[in-house]
Amino acid sequence: MCSIDLNCDIGESFGVYRVGDDSLLIPHVTSVNIACGFHAGDPRTMREAVRTAAECGAAIGAHPGFPDLTGFGRRALDVTPEEVYELVVYQFGALAGFASAAGTRVEHVKPHGALYTMAAVRPEIAGAIARAVQDVDRTLVLFGLTGSALIEAGREAGLRTAREAFADRNYLRDGTLVPRTRREALILDPDELIRRAIRLIRDRRVVSVEGEDLILEADTLCIHGDTPEAAKLAAALRASLDADGIEVRPLSRVEQVEHSRVAPSDPAP
Amino acid sequence: MCSIDLNCDIGESFGVYRVGDDSLLIPHVTSVNIACGFHAGDPRTMREAVRTAAECGAAIGAHPGFPDLTGFGRRALDVTPEEVYELVVYQFGALAGFASAAGTRVEHVKPHGALYTMAAVRPEIAGAIARAVQDVDRTLVLFGLTGSALIEAGREAGLRTAREAFADRNYLRDGTLVPRTRREALILDPDELIRRAIRLIRDRRVVSVEGEDLILEADTLCIHGDTPEAAKLAAALRASLDADGIEVRPLSRVEQVEHSRVAPSDPAP
Amino acid sequence: MCSIDLNCDIGESFGVYRVGDDSLLIPHVTSVNIACGFHAGDPRTMREAVRTAAECGAAIGAHPGFPDLTGFGRRALDVTPEEVYELVVYQFGALAGFASAAGTRVEHVKPHGALYTMAAVRPEIAGAIARAVQDVDRTLVLFGLTGSALIEAGREAGLRTAREAFADRNYLRDGTLVPRTRREALILDPDELIRRAIRLIRDRRVVSVEGEDLILEADTLCIHGDTPEAAKLAAALRASLDADGIEVRPLSRVEQVEHSRVAPSDPAP
Amino acid sequence: MCSIDLNCDIGESFGVYRVGDDSLLIPHVTSVNIACGFHAGDPRTMREAVRTAAECGAAIGAHPGFPDLTGFGRRALDVTPEEVYELVVYQFGALAGFASAAGTRVEHVKPHGALYTMAAVRPEIAGAIARAVQDVDRTLVLFGLTGSALIEAGREAGLRTAREAFADRNYLRDGTLVPRTRREALILDPDELIRRAIRLIRDRRVVSVEGEDLILEADTLCIHGDTPEAAKLAAALRASLDADGIEVRPLSRVEQVEHSRVAPSDPAP
Repeated sequence: MCSIDLNCDIGESFGVYRVGDDSLLIPHVTSVNIACGFHAGDPRTMREAVRTAAECGAAIGAHPGFPDLTGFGRRALDVTPEEVYELVVYQFGALAGFASAAGTRVEHVKPHGALYTMAAVRPEIAGAIARAVQDVDRTLVLFGLTGSALIEAGREAGLRTAREAFADRNYLRDGTLVPRTRREALILDPDELIRRAIRLIRDRRVVSVEGEDLILEADTLCIHGDTPEAAKLAAALRASLDADGIEVRPLSRVEQVEHSRVAPSDPAP
Repeated sequence: MCSIDLNCDIGESFGVYRVGDDSLLIPHVTSVNIACGFHAGDPRTMREAVRTAAECGAAIGAHPGFPDLTGFGRRALDVTPEEVYELVVYQFGALAGFASAAGTRVEHVKPHGALYTMAAVRPEIAGAIARAVQDVDRTLVLFGLTGSALIEAGREAGLRTAREAFADRNYLRDGTLVPRTRREALILDPDELIRRAIRLIRDRRVVSVEGEDLILEADTLCIHGDTPEAAKLAAALRASLDADGIEVRPLSRVEQVEHSRVAPSDPAP
Repeated sequence: MCSIDLNCDIGESFGVYRVGDDSLLIPHVTSVNIACGFHAGDPRTMREAVRTAAECGAAIGAHPGFPDLTGFGRRALDVTPEEVYELVVYQFGALAGFASAAGTRVEHVKPHGALYTMAAVRPEIAGAIARAVQDVDRTLVLFGLTGSALIEAGREAGLRTAREAFADRNYLRDGTLVPRTRREALILDPDELIRRAIRLIRDRRVVSVEGEDLILEADTLCIHGDTPEAAKLAAALRASLDADGIEVRPLSRVEQVEHSRVAPSDPAP
Repeated sequence: MCSIDLNCDIGESFGVYRVGDDSLLIPHVTSVNIACGFHAGDPRTMREAVRTAAECGAAIGAHPGFPDLTGFGRRALDVTPEEVYELVVYQFGALAGFASAAGTRVEHVKPHGALYTMAAVRPEIAGAIARAVQDVDRTLVLFGLTGSALIEAGREAGLRTAREAFADRNYLRDGTLVPRTRREALILDPDELIRRAIRLIRDRRVVSVEGEDLILEADTLCIHGDTPEAAKLAAALRASLDADGIEVRPLSRVEQVEHSRVAPSDPAP
């Protein structure tokens, strides 16, 4: 049977500034990536995001980014791998504090914005992130763009990885995302988005912006939460997946199932 | 036999800015309080402070402060108890990330600067800190001014507490510290400082600035590390305590000893 | 003939975070107070706010606040008068840079949030603000709560001052504002707000929350821009004032008129 | 007669953190570049730097950098030209506020760190800086690496420019600086530094790290102030230049002289 994880970025409010409505979106996904105060988020917002995710049963992930609130972490910063390592440890830790305080735990890490993009193509940045995740908690799942240097680095470090694909973003022929600065970057039509999501999950295929089929292996689909229609869209996608017999479940459970399939006689850990 | 913990604030550098020389001071103390990036410190500095403390065998503590780098956390900020709770959870967590990554753990929490001062006299601020510490890890030791609302709040929350006294600060008749803005705030003469330290530990007494004896119960003495002579002074103090037969040891060990004295038949946890 | 200045706080967006719609509100007021990047605002937002204000002919004012983005400058910070002086000079200067670049100038200064509140009752804080304004440009108008220490300090410094009243806030018997934490702080009914505004301007009177009449001298009324209905409300207020024969005009022109009334033979500067 | 401007970066302290001793260095130079609070500096530090510079008669310049206190503005940030324009206007304005308050003015602008380096080679970044300077005050002098895109952009914008060379940095064959990450980046020997400075001024030549002579046209030499020996070195350099008959004077005066040489009958502006 076919299954997928649905993830979205949440906790992106800051102080008096509100972005998205986390409480409407979270019930429709299985994993959430919570901003940690560097590119967005603040202690209050993080605490509330953790609480809502825990109540909804979504797997909690850290979403570390560059220390650039003005640029929302979307501007590349010329950091060293050591600096990346430290940014990830700090931000993961801060979120883990709130998870502990709420009686739960962080289950995955997904870098944000320009850090995500840099980690997709630069092995030394990817390696620094994988090393940080490994050092703070080697049971964490590392999220990264499918086919990226980050997934590769996570595997080399012996981490569980989640290969991420986007149903609402267009792809170039080489498997990278069409930059947000181009008009075709986003898939805005809900029906097309749902069709693309199902094809991605069932057939592992998506049509690139140049018109050719790409093969993409995805463990998790990202749903963007920063549009007013995000919650409605997520609900529609979820319903379509259910109707199509695709199970939506958090990565942690998926991986355990796969593991037991490979080695059925292995006792559960 | 008489014993005491010696603590100092470290990790107060930031970016290119260096304050103190942690590696010289840490070997002389048993507990360190590491700044967590809000009033001082940054991910690189925190990582190095944790590493040095671990190498020296000093107990690692989080030193959360107000988000005020310009004012070094020394300016009171009119925060709510909920905001205090969140500041402490966030900063503790960030430091705990570096401790995990270094294969060690955070053992105590001591608020910094204006937060420390507010927590000494305002029960709702003290309560918020105690609650945060309790929620993230109830085995942590909470450091606070001896006789303060913070120590009271820690006890009420069922936490182990460390009553702190200062050998290098003058006291007012009521047991509070002479404000730093007054000339008599600091004890600068090393010999006087050492005499005061020994009297504090042995006799639980210190002469107030008004000339009367105060009784102070102290589990830990704070040594300031931000002067050039800090390491030399710490070494001299440590040597004097050794010569005087006063054992210097981290709080965790002290408390366990006391515990086993009270209930000798209790099995070790 | 009766006249009044209408002012509102704008430029409070930050990075990707949007607050209010400045372009809808500005056409209805005669003075705008632009956040300068410490409690809200960023270089991009300041530049756009200056441009829109200049296009609409609104007088441009600096709106300096505490360096507390998380708390939106609403939390009191225990600063010295020297620190206040420096905060005001810095933030005024930054805005003046954008005004110069747009071929216009800053005409007034109004402190924000907790700084405004502190300056209303603490003469040394008020004096520091007045001194900063005087030093950077003595032709600036200083905005402050009517009857406050800030207005007093501005007059002593020889500055033109604008006594501010609030049509959408309730007053206590002593002329101070009902704190935002109380339910009665805000006047939400548009009709009542307009009635209060007209009575304030015509009769210099407002009913306190205790039910007694207060006499308030106001040169400028503040309209809050952070609600979705702000622009609509401002338009309705403006129309009512016009219908009532009350002239709405920026402070600079009002003051010159008054000045020439006192000394009609004086040549224009 | 041969002449040169000597400039140094000052005002790089922040809060409790002190870097360099501005008051010792400033007397030996003719132009100072003051950090504006984004990569270093704070309102207090800026105010003091302006005061000291004014007392010493040094020309005051704004030294805008990236908003990256942790990285001291040395890490490239992927900004748009519009963002660069806004960063420069904001930071120039903030410093100009302190200059006004001290009864003096800002005379030049020199970008800092990674912004300086990017402006040397990327025409659209250079153009944005030149446009910002032109818009805030077209009488300002724009400082940039000799031979750089920034000098070119300044000239195209009709600004006075100051071509900067470094006596304490090694050059590559193509006229760019040896990156700080390489061992040969800095000239540490005072005698060699002074010899290089005099040769640069007299012969417009410097030996590249590859051993070939480069021709460099320099209007101003930069002296780094962040080493303990900076003031001593500056004094020695200044004495050597005096002994060699090289006049050290601020750019403003140099340029006026040149101007009057070109058009001697022109009345002074």
